[in-house]
Amino acid sequence: MTSMTSLHADRLLPADLGTRDIARRLHAATAGLPIISPHGHVPPQWLAEDTAFRDPTSLLISPDHYVFRLLHAQGVPLADLGVGGVPLDEQGARRAWRLFCENWSAFRGTSSRFWLESVLSDVFGLSQRPSAESADALYDAISAALATPEFRPRALAERFGISVLATTDDPTDSLEHHRALAEDPGFATRVAPTFRPDRYLEPARADFAELVAALGRAADVDTSTYAGYLAALEDRRRFFKAHGGVSTDHSHVDVVTLTLDPAEAQRIYAKALTGKASATEATAFRRHMLMEMARMATEDGLVMTLHPGVHRDHHTPTADRFGPDTGHDIPVAVEFTRALQPLLERYGTAEGFQLILFTLDESVFSREIAPLAGFYPSVYAGAPWWFLDAPEAVRRYRGAVTETAGFHRTSGFIDDTRAFLSIPARHDMSRRLDAAYLAQLVAEHRLDEDEALETAVELVTTIPSRAFKL
Amino acid sequence: MTSMTSLHADRLLPADLGTRDIARRLHAATAGLPIISPHGHVPPQWLAEDTAFRDPTSLLISPDHYVFRLLHAQGVPLADLGVGGVPLDEQGARRAWRLFCENWSAFRGTSSRFWLESVLSDVFGLSQRPSAESADALYDAISAALATPEFRPRALAERFGISVLATTDDPTDSLEHHRALAEDPGFATRVAPTFRPDRYLEPARADFAELVAALGRAADVDTSTYAGYLAALEDRRRFFKAHGGVSTDHSHVDVVTLTLDPAEAQRIYAKALTGKASATEATAFRRHMLMEMARMATEDGLVMTLHPGVHRDHHTPTADRFGPDTGHDIPVAVEFTRALQPLLERYGTAEGFQLILFTLDESVFSREIAPLAGFYPSVYAGAPWWFLDAPEAVRRYRGAVTETAGFHRTSGFIDDTRAFLSIPARHDMSRRLDAAYLAQLVAEHRLDEDEALETAVELVTTIPSRAFKL
Amino acid sequence: MTSMTSLHADRLLPADLGTRDIARRLHAATAGLPIISPHGHVPPQWLAEDTAFRDPTSLLISPDHYVFRLLHAQGVPLADLGVGGVPLDEQGARRAWRLFCENWSAFRGTSSRFWLESVLSDVFGLSQRPSAESADALYDAISAALATPEFRPRALAERFGISVLATTDDPTDSLEHHRALAEDPGFATRVAPTFRPDRYLEPARADFAELVAALGRAADVDTSTYAGYLAALEDRRRFFKAHGGVSTDHSHVDVVTLTLDPAEAQRIYAKALTGKASATEATAFRRHMLMEMARMATEDGLVMTLHPGVHRDHHTPTADRFGPDTGHDIPVAVEFTRALQPLLERYGTAEGFQLILFTLDESVFSREIAPLAGFYPSVYAGAPWWFLDAPEAVRRYRGAVTETAGFHRTSGFIDDTRAFLSIPARHDMSRRLDAAYLAQLVAEHRLDEDEALETAVELVTTIPSRAFKL
Repeated sequence: MTSMTSLHADRLLPADLGTRDIARRLHAATAGLPIISPHGHVPPQWLAEDTAFRDPTSLLISPDHYVFRLLHAQGVPLADLGVGGVPLDEQGARRAWRLFCENWSAFRGTSSRFWLESVLSDVFGLSQRPSAESADALYDAISAALATPEFRPRALAERFGISVLATTDDPTDSLEHHRALAEDPGFATRVAPTFRPDRYLEPARADFAELVAALGRAADVDTSTYAGYLAALEDRRRFFKAHGGVSTDHSHVDVVTLTLDPAEAQRIYAKALTGKASATEATAFRRHMLMEMARMATEDGLVMTLHPGVHRDHHTPTADRFGPDTGHDIPVAVEFTRALQPLLERYGTAEGFQLILFTLDESVFSREIAPLAGFYPSVYAGAPWWFLDAPEAVRRYRGAVTETAGFHRTSGFIDDTRAFLSIPARHDMSRRLDAAYLAQLVAEHRLDEDEALETAVELVTTIPSRAFKL
Repeated sequence: MTSMTSLHADRLLPADLGTRDIARRLHAATAGLPIISPHGHVPPQWLAEDTAFRDPTSLLISPDHYVFRLLHAQGVPLADLGVGGVPLDEQGARRAWRLFCENWSAFRGTSSRFWLESVLSDVFGLSQRPSAESADALYDAISAALATPEFRPRALAERFGISVLATTDDPTDSLEHHRALAEDPGFATRVAPTFRPDRYLEPARADFAELVAALGRAADVDTSTYAGYLAALEDRRRFFKAHGGVSTDHSHVDVVTLTLDPAEAQRIYAKALTGKASATEATAFRRHMLMEMARMATEDGLVMTLHPGVHRDHHTPTADRFGPDTGHDIPVAVEFTRALQPLLERYGTAEGFQLILFTLDESVFSREIAPLAGFYPSVYAGAPWWFLDAPEAVRRYRGAVTETAGFHRTSGFIDDTRAFLSIPARHDMSRRLDAAYLAQLVAEHRLDEDEALETAVELVTTIPSRAFKL
Repeated sequence: MTSMTSLHADRLLPADLGTRDIARRLHAATAGLPIISPHGHVPPQWLAEDTAFRDPTSLLISPDHYVFRLLHAQGVPLADLGVGGVPLDEQGARRAWRLFCENWSAFRGTSSRFWLESVLSDVFGLSQRPSAESADALYDAISAALATPEFRPRALAERFGISVLATTDDPTDSLEHHRALAEDPGFATRVAPTFRPDRYLEPARADFAELVAALGRAADVDTSTYAGYLAALEDRRRFFKAHGGVSTDHSHVDVVTLTLDPAEAQRIYAKALTGKASATEATAFRRHMLMEMARMATEDGLVMTLHPGVHRDHHTPTADRFGPDTGHDIPVAVEFTRALQPLLERYGTAEGFQLILFTLDESVFSREIAPLAGFYPSVYAGAPWWFLDAPEAVRRYRGAVTETAGFHRTSGFIDDTRAFLSIPARHDMSRRLDAAYLAQLVAEHRLDEDEALETAVELVTTIPSRAFKL
């Protein structure tokens, strides 16, 4: 009744048959290698507790802002999709799934289409195309699978071949799940926490005083002074490192860096605790603290990753009702060259310091990121991120970065995802696209095939391992 | 003597033969469908009065800034091309045509080349390549054709299969031509006016008081007060809607929006009428009025289109001598995310509100426009506009927008042209490029061919109809 | 033992076989034509004195910031590569060469890889791939070649078929080498100086007073007054022109232009001589002087080239130790439309005035540069520059510029290089890429092959000759 779909072995490989042949050989060399996922948002609790996923909707739709944002744009209310935390009941979940299937055509040409199709086909073995007609059958088939042990999180992690999975965690987190997983000899995936201190570095927040108090409690340090605040941050970074953490992640609206003199930093910090820091002071302090994060990185060796340039919570009514990360974070232009000059002047050639630059503003790839990564031994060009994590954007990224910085100055792929089941599809997408890109270089006689083959393998092994110190 | 040219059936389709085969099938499905032109600049008088075109130069060169600007860059004076309003006499027109033909090579690789070639070949059936040698023969052949009834505007509209043609009109326009055309049972094309209020929203203009007085006369409302001014705008919008209008168009240098409190808006308006509003006040008022236009749109249902980011009249001496739209409007960078946040916060999810975003700054397609269109049900990513309305730019547009927003959140093609005879060539170009883009998705196994076929048809039928409420 | 590499006849031509056939025919028409190099950095002394190159490292690594910057990013200290002026001794040079060969894989996919491979293969006839194993053999082979007369600079210039080679020179330069070369009947290459006055136009420099004093001495004019300063600049421009100069080159951080009234210019100049001009005054003066350079260009006819948008000496510790041009000049965003409006308003249509716009910010190609070059008879879109001088960036440049400005409004290729031996490889790269681009237009039936052939030839003959008034 409904049309069928199935995943072609050559998907995303170049249409030109000669180039495709090369790409096939390159992809074959990486297709079976373990997945290294050094930045993402899978809750560690899922793996630690290994509880079954509830239903198709709460697994594939409600937490995936790529998916529900496009349905929202089509006129589907977010509440109908279970967005915002409280799972839908069985009837609501089934209805949400139907809405998704009925709007399947809205995803044509998107990266979500590619990932969802891969999940349905590769993870669940389903070949019906989503539609009003197929919705219930798909829902039932996925539900049945989720009830089996093979679809528990740990079994899937093993099936997916995930060797490293980094999570993103609050500095005050107890990391109990990471500890439990590390101590479990029966679970092979290395689950590494990532230190994400953004809100503790933003004195403009109304809850700043509470946040740093909580930070102090976590570190068992008095954060009522600037010195205590720094000590608490240093302590928590060490704690993360002791629990397998390899990197810190920073996502402010810009990456401007500067150094306040200690007395001035102390003064603003004290003022911020009373909620009286001006906007200018708060911004200066945050920029100073980004520099301090780099300083700490040179001491504890954690890799620093920057994900700037997002206007968060663009639609306030939606944020108020459904909370953060509900599909209306919208990119803005970002600047790296001048912003990072103070930081790189000081730490750019420091032993062991590593800084990975991500962006949602493609114009900086060739203009700023590749030139920086092509000079500073500390700087890596981060993989295409978020809205740019899609076939043509990935192609543009390689085209913009490689000619100036080569392959060794890039970070390797990150999936940055909460959508656990899509992790293999995302890495497969990246491997196919890198095979396609390298095949093009070979076809145009810019690279020999043995070099391309070696590079394809490095891109999923030594390159991410080195960039993230794994 | 001169070389010959002829339009190939596969023009603009992918060079790879396998992909081209797919593209041919997709293009075949749309090639014969009627043309929907929801935004453009054809004078409605041409169709209402159906008078014969005067000569090749005044039809194809003097009014087409794409053409005469590039000749000007080659050193041809604008006066020699009949730019600026007064048509050249027979001798001057023929001389201008010769200058154009002698400089034919300057157009290699441009979109104008594609359109002009299509006009000569498809509309006039001419196969000689323009050159010094062929100039007179081409001039004579076109002149002879223009004297026949088959080349009157209405006959051409019918031959071109234009089902909808939107014009761009001043708010004070009587819309008499639109009324005449609507009442004529013998003319099938729906000619819709578009409300273009830019200059009535810019208190920095020297003639602002005169303009709003004229607006008041047109609406029969006293515009000496701010309330009257708003009422007059609302009245004229209703008038346009009653005459078949579906959209309003706005082309200011930026799209920043804000809300003034009514007393402040009133104060600036009063000051502006005396010519005393400061630059800052005038800008704030315009930004406030863009918000008011959105408010009115939620009330009367007219679709709002934004065409920002042009530095008009870059070369003042040319503007002074030849008037506006004489080839030296130059794009500047533009910002949407922050600029439109106040407007979208308020109206972004309002029932029936629709906002189509165009740009000449390609960097915002993937960074801002696609993310906005992929969340807000009101926002559509407008088709490539003006300098970007060319094969490779269109390809970049699809590549930048689709992966985040799909096809359904785009507006469908607009031709935005005064060059009436090029309308079929422009839409054909777009259809070929969409076929090529979709064929690529099929060839890379990202989309099934039946889906691509359906999408190709939607892109010239339901997608523009929905975006422009046709 | 080590892998071998050899340059394929079809390198950089399109992978699609049908398109490749066209591209081959186009490339064949230009492959043997002389090289016109109207902008670069080869020291004229090399050619005037015709001394043998010292060793492989001081020829190919130490002076090439493309090469040593990427090695630095890989962790190789600049001092080990002989960067910063003092050549390494034999042992150090050999060691540096080994470091380079061991890191050969870091260059995969870069433009340097293409150039270096061409130099090794085409210039030296070497086919071993650089590696730890092959390093010494390559070093020895190159050293041996460099000791022969065939590898002296003049012999190479003749072998490379360089008909015009522009250098970049200080306004106070005696141009003795240029004079010697011009007077030598045995040397066919025209070596043209380029007037590069940047530092004489920047009153913010600490050494501004010394600089303009030196300028005065060179011109034999008293530069203690603003009038004398202008006269000295005019004099030196005439001197350059008398010695075969055709252009002036300007590389400030932005291209904003403005006109100070003469009294104000005089006032700032006087203040600047005492080192007391404020940052604002210094910037205003520089922008005013860019306008003055245009004024002088309308008088003496020298072509004006702009290379803006670089943050020079990003890493101060490296600049302090190794000097300028040591690999850490990083691009920033740049703006042309508004910045150049005052200049183009005044001189944009002036008889004989020519302005070539280069950029490292790709976003301005389609948005600003092509629209400007497509209207102003004086403006040319400069070829892809520096980090953008690489296969895919060149492809993006043509894709961004051609549809608006065609081919005739572009400058033709510039190599902008100090790396003398790579000049043929760079021009060959450009010719291959233009052949590929034009072949694509032919394959997509946007251009007839005879037109493409004519254009390919023009791009390396009449187009650069006209843009640079050669």
